[in-house]
Amino acid sequence: MQLIIGNKNYSSWSLRGWLALKAFNLPFEEIKLVLFSDTFHSELAKYSPVGKVPVLVDSDLSVWDSLSICEYLNENYLDGKGWPADKSKRAVARSVVADMHSGLFGIRNEMPMNCRARRHVELSNQAKKEVATLDALWTKLRAENAQNGGYLFGEFSLADAFFAPVIFRFKTYGIALSAAASDYQTTMLAHPAMQEWLNDAIAETDVYAASETGEAV
Amino acid sequence: MQLIIGNKNYSSWSLRGWLALKAFNLPFEEIKLVLFSDTFHSELAKYSPVGKVPVLVDSDLSVWDSLSICEYLNENYLDGKGWPADKSKRAVARSVVADMHSGLFGIRNEMPMNCRARRHVELSNQAKKEVATLDALWTKLRAENAQNGGYLFGEFSLADAFFAPVIFRFKTYGIALSAAASDYQTTMLAHPAMQEWLNDAIAETDVYAASETGEAV
Repeated sequence: MQLIIGNKNYSSWSLRGWLALKAFNLPFEEIKLVLFSDTFHSELAKYSPVGKVPVLVDSDLSVWDSLSICEYLNENYLDGKGWPADKSKRAVARSVVADMHSGLFGIRNEMPMNCRARRHVELSNQAKKEVATLDALWTKLRAENAQNGGYLFGEFSLADAFFAPVIFRFKTYGIALSAAASDYQTTMLAHPAMQEWLNDAIAETDVYAASETGEAV
Repeated sequence: MQLIIGNKNYSSWSLRGWLALKAFNLPFEEIKLVLFSDTFHSELAKYSPVGKVPVLVDSDLSVWDSLSICEYLNENYLDGKGWPADKSKRAVARSVVADMHSGLFGIRNEMPMNCRARRHVELSNQAKKEVATLDALWTKLRAENAQNGGYLFGEFSLADAFFAPVIFRFKTYGIALSAAASDYQTTMLAHPAMQEWLNDAIAETDVYAASETGEAV
């Protein structure tokens, strides 16, 4: 399989698809197209019918959108183990992921992912409310499940892959979290795949890199 | 099972969850909460941890977000038959549904669902582009699959449930479509479950109903 992604520093959707492969030890070739470059769209058109990253290419099949990629991998390569094994927990996992997939625009618009930078931002009331909602959600899920691995549903699942960009965002913008949510953030940032992504992001030399401080966490 | 929905005339997300049950002949109790009413949010809080419709209640489990509800029903009640049987077609179905779930904001913002009304709207270039994208997508998928049932992937699938609100929107706002896309729209509007939804929407007597013309199609 091949995964076509954008810059690791900026492309939050790419991170989700990449973790769905990397964190589950699925072999794949990474093809990185440089955002903001003249050739990005023409290169991407070779792989994607809709011109968006990430795209998963499996033989002659192109699968796009990070959530669709997650379901594809779960069904065809993970034997269903991408989601929690328990039927009820699996339903909740898909529900909270769908909320992230279709909403949380305050967070997404006001805190664009920029893994290697440290920034300050004045959040709108909407974004503050979303931060509080996510904090409460993570706290609740970990209280229910973390004894089995420290992630939202115990062992690392596709739900964690989906929240990964927000983990980086909250670090970049210095968002204060509750003790439990902060503990989840620490667990996520320490995941080897997250560390690898961050180090690759720091090493990227795009047009904006000079103005950003690379910082490992 | 119970499905908690909003007004049929307006609630596009509710329509998706409702069709995922109704079009597949799954038995359920419909609980309609009236949007814009004083009690909407307090009533909804009894069923939904996030305060959004639709919510599927299955014994002591609440499943929310229309896409998560679709996956839940597909896995637990439809034996996988909600999506196309072919692995590649199933991946494409989930990809186009995910695009609809997370995007197409021009269409969604400029043409709010209002099944029973007939309106005119001047679309932005973004919305026009999205209409053309959907028209081309529907045309392509039906050319590949329609010989087996007239829907996007042959027989009615969860992908059709996901595009159903757009079918109503294009009717309400008189959007011109290509012959093939128009044929798909006609097929969808003739589906018994779509007819039932529309007739129920026409019969609703909410605060805005007096200014809208109920019209069957």
